[in-house]
Amino acid sequence: QSSVTISGTVDVAIRQVRNGSLGAVNSEVSGANSTSKLILRGTEDLGAGLSAAFYLDGTILADTGVGGANVPAGQLWDRRSTVGLIDARLGEIRLGRDWVPTHLVWSSFDPFATLGIASANTFRSFSASRALGQAFGTAPESQAANPTLRVSNAAEYFLPAGLGGVYGSLIATAKEGGTTAAGFTRGDGFRLGWSGSGFNIAAAQFRTRNAAADQTFKDQVYGASYDFGAAKLGVAQRRWIYGADRTVNTQLGASIPAGPGAIKLSYVRADQTGATVAQSANDAHLIGVGYVYSLSKRTAVYGHMARVTNKGSAVFVVPGGIAVSANAVAANYFGGQKSNAFEVGIRHDF
Amino acid sequence: QSSVTISGTVDVAIRQVRNGSLGAVNSEVSGANSTSKLILRGTEDLGAGLSAAFYLDGTILADTGVGGANVPAGQLWDRRSTVGLIDARLGEIRLGRDWVPTHLVWSSFDPFATLGIASANTFRSFSASRALGQAFGTAPESQAANPTLRVSNAAEYFLPAGLGGVYGSLIATAKEGGTTAAGFTRGDGFRLGWSGSGFNIAAAQFRTRNAAADQTFKDQVYGASYDFGAAKLGVAQRRWIYGADRTVNTQLGASIPAGPGAIKLSYVRADQTGATVAQSANDAHLIGVGYVYSLSKRTAVYGHMARVTNKGSAVFVVPGGIAVSANAVAANYFGGQKSNAFEVGIRHDF
Amino acid sequence: QSSVTISGTVDVAIRQVRNGSLGAVNSEVSGANSTSKLILRGTEDLGAGLSAAFYLDGTILADTGVGGANVPAGQLWDRRSTVGLIDARLGEIRLGRDWVPTHLVWSSFDPFATLGIASANTFRSFSASRALGQAFGTAPESQAANPTLRVSNAAEYFLPAGLGGVYGSLIATAKEGGTTAAGFTRGDGFRLGWSGSGFNIAAAQFRTRNAAADQTFKDQVYGASYDFGAAKLGVAQRRWIYGADRTVNTQLGASIPAGPGAIKLSYVRADQTGATVAQSANDAHLIGVGYVYSLSKRTAVYGHMARVTNKGSAVFVVPGGIAVSANAVAANYFGGQKSNAFEVGIRHDF
Repeated sequence: QSSVTISGTVDVAIRQVRNGSLGAVNSEVSGANSTSKLILRGTEDLGAGLSAAFYLDGTILADTGVGGANVPAGQLWDRRSTVGLIDARLGEIRLGRDWVPTHLVWSSFDPFATLGIASANTFRSFSASRALGQAFGTAPESQAANPTLRVSNAAEYFLPAGLGGVYGSLIATAKEGGTTAAGFTRGDGFRLGWSGSGFNIAAAQFRTRNAAADQTFKDQVYGASYDFGAAKLGVAQRRWIYGADRTVNTQLGASIPAGPGAIKLSYVRADQTGATVAQSANDAHLIGVGYVYSLSKRTAVYGHMARVTNKGSAVFVVPGGIAVSANAVAANYFGGQKSNAFEVGIRHDF
Repeated sequence: QSSVTISGTVDVAIRQVRNGSLGAVNSEVSGANSTSKLILRGTEDLGAGLSAAFYLDGTILADTGVGGANVPAGQLWDRRSTVGLIDARLGEIRLGRDWVPTHLVWSSFDPFATLGIASANTFRSFSASRALGQAFGTAPESQAANPTLRVSNAAEYFLPAGLGGVYGSLIATAKEGGTTAAGFTRGDGFRLGWSGSGFNIAAAQFRTRNAAADQTFKDQVYGASYDFGAAKLGVAQRRWIYGADRTVNTQLGASIPAGPGAIKLSYVRADQTGATVAQSANDAHLIGVGYVYSLSKRTAVYGHMARVTNKGSAVFVVPGGIAVSANAVAANYFGGQKSNAFEVGIRHDF
Repeated sequence: QSSVTISGTVDVAIRQVRNGSLGAVNSEVSGANSTSKLILRGTEDLGAGLSAAFYLDGTILADTGVGGANVPAGQLWDRRSTVGLIDARLGEIRLGRDWVPTHLVWSSFDPFATLGIASANTFRSFSASRALGQAFGTAPESQAANPTLRVSNAAEYFLPAGLGGVYGSLIATAKEGGTTAAGFTRGDGFRLGWSGSGFNIAAAQFRTRNAAADQTFKDQVYGASYDFGAAKLGVAQRRWIYGADRTVNTQLGASIPAGPGAIKLSYVRADQTGATVAQSANDAHLIGVGYVYSLSKRTAVYGHMARVTNKGSAVFVVPGGIAVSANAVAANYFGGQKSNAFEVGIRHDF
């Protein structure tokens, strides 16, 4: 049917993660350069500058064949499922499940687009980041459902194009009597940015009003980048605040065109503050390097290397390694250790 | 591939439901005007008046990104998954999961197509309708699996086109040793109707032979409508019968063309009969009003209002509000109260 | 989008299975002639003899509307999800979930393609084959996850075309710290064959290094077929070896063109060897007959008959009948009995 565009990505990589003294694990992973996904979307011109659009986008874990996510059960279109009306001058009203504005801004400044072993989301760990863990719990379900990546039941407004590079959006979500652990978020947020002449600057916030104990969790981000031609450099900061606990992620990134591809460099630092001195000492940083070799616009091979260095008793790791513990008497206690990883993969857009 | 047609709908609305003294809940919902769905289908001409056809149709909950249903687990094509052989003169043999004939007839007479807050299926409640609850249980799984909407493992025969407006079908389903609560139905049914000169009259029945205690549950419906031009008026009745319990739903509906859209009016009454006088007093009715404003053939915005009025200790509600109880000593006892709701949304067919 | 090809099959049949003295069950089943499925795939020409390809393939159970499998949860693309780079002279590197080489060879020699009641996989039963049950457990999850059909996390190499009919592949899979019961396999294998002048001969092996108790499970197959024109005859053997237990499946198959279709004949024998004489006596054989009547290249109707004969206390059955027990004092003890079945269905490729 002419009104539907089908596209997507299959991206699979081989990864090795060595968690300090605990040893290494080899694995196959999906989406280290671009999320493996299936997208159905379309736009209809309604005349008089008005159009309608739908967008369905679901993750594929191509290493195992899994489609979508599981919180709630059967969430096939976990990345986005929206319908919208767009007025060329007034902007867009959009309803459904979508990315939160903070993730959109944070991701736009990361040369690794928050994917793979060098992801700027490496410190988005519910077990190791106290602010996230306290606000949303550490169960896998809570991680899947929490609104620091995407959120269900959203009503959004987007600024129209043609504002001289200014872009932005507002978002509100209904909790519907449910809990954040089950994917129901009472939230609100915004995104505002400007892009032009090689610059991109943006800020965003998303507040979750029904995090644990019905308290407010704040997710804030701002950043700037400039494309020098020989390299695109960017800096951004994302803050997660919940009561006395906060995790501040700061990122420096560079993307350097090199041959039929690009070199990527990233430094990300997590600065944690808690109620106690010990909690405040649990910081970490990540160094990531990568090269993406484009075989065409749609297909590339790539290699990434990353190292996470923990301080205090922080237990951040690159995903895919041996399970680690923050319990100082556990056999797999990992406090203050390093997690080293590399991965090589194939990415194909269709 | 030319042999596949992809189509579907994304329909999302904002809803408020106020359940009597218990207060209001705001939510985002999917499919209030037309079920959000993804359809893959195709037909092959085999020559000599014979053709083959397949149809895959799965619900999308676009507010949360969920695809399909969960009873049985992973039921992606929950609406329909069939293959058929069609002879132009003899009719169609069809195998797979499909709608039951009673739903097809009932839905065809409802101006709201059994969707949204003014749905003629509002009294299809397993907790509040005693006949349904007794026959299939009140667990969410039982609701999802019961055969008053669709049924798995069906073998069907459909009359051919070209019988002067007469249409009809036969259906039988295999229980395969399973239970109705798990989606296995030993059932049989038919549908017969005539459409022409502005009239549509039809009747259908579906009997479930393995409802609770292996007793028979009867689902019967008949109705008639006439299109006066200025308005299409219809009346229909659907009867659920299980032992001494029965729920009789009667519907009066009108659809009135108005500008680039239509006004919809609906009155639905649930008359319950049980073993006791108190059970027989648990009746209710619904009044629904709506306007659908078409921006194109494929896209519309709409608004609906509805009120459910309970009698006796009936606890029917519009879906989406605060949970109610039929237990007279519970804090959220709802017997005899009113459920009021409105919703506004965007529907886009692709 | 021109880069995606959508295809698949909807195949539904009516089946009756009579398990000895226990009686008969009628059911509707999916995929008895060709697996009901949805396939998204595409190839991109990268120039210089290089191309990229993706392949997503998920089972549909069209009798109930289920898509994909459930181990791991939400495995929509359970049949295959891969990305690969193909060099015309050097061959293909492929990553993702794929068939194991042993199944590819075994299936290629079965006139019934391991589907339906006469499938050469009838003895691939985790409750009745001691080698499989001991290696992978008998839980439904273990059956779904075990690597005798497909395997996740695979890295593969395929020989290029143009080697005079020689074909082959290598495969290795990462266990990632998980168990085979959860779908994580540490395995390796190969496939090597030659096809030409009416002949097809092939052998394959897949070794699972982390079967139960972290012991090795061996899956080996070899076979040969010749197309005489009036009939295609084949013979193959598949061996499952786990410690002292082994099940050897031997198959003789014939496919005979007849009118606009083909007659299929199959004899499959399971010869079990265990630690005790009694275990070694639990053999069985299957006789299968079928006719596929093609209405077009894409559409067919078919009928199959099959009988499984158990020896000793073997309890192999055709799927779809009354549950049987290997417990000699159970009411539904089935040791040494016969399972008879027939099925008729419609298959439509799209």
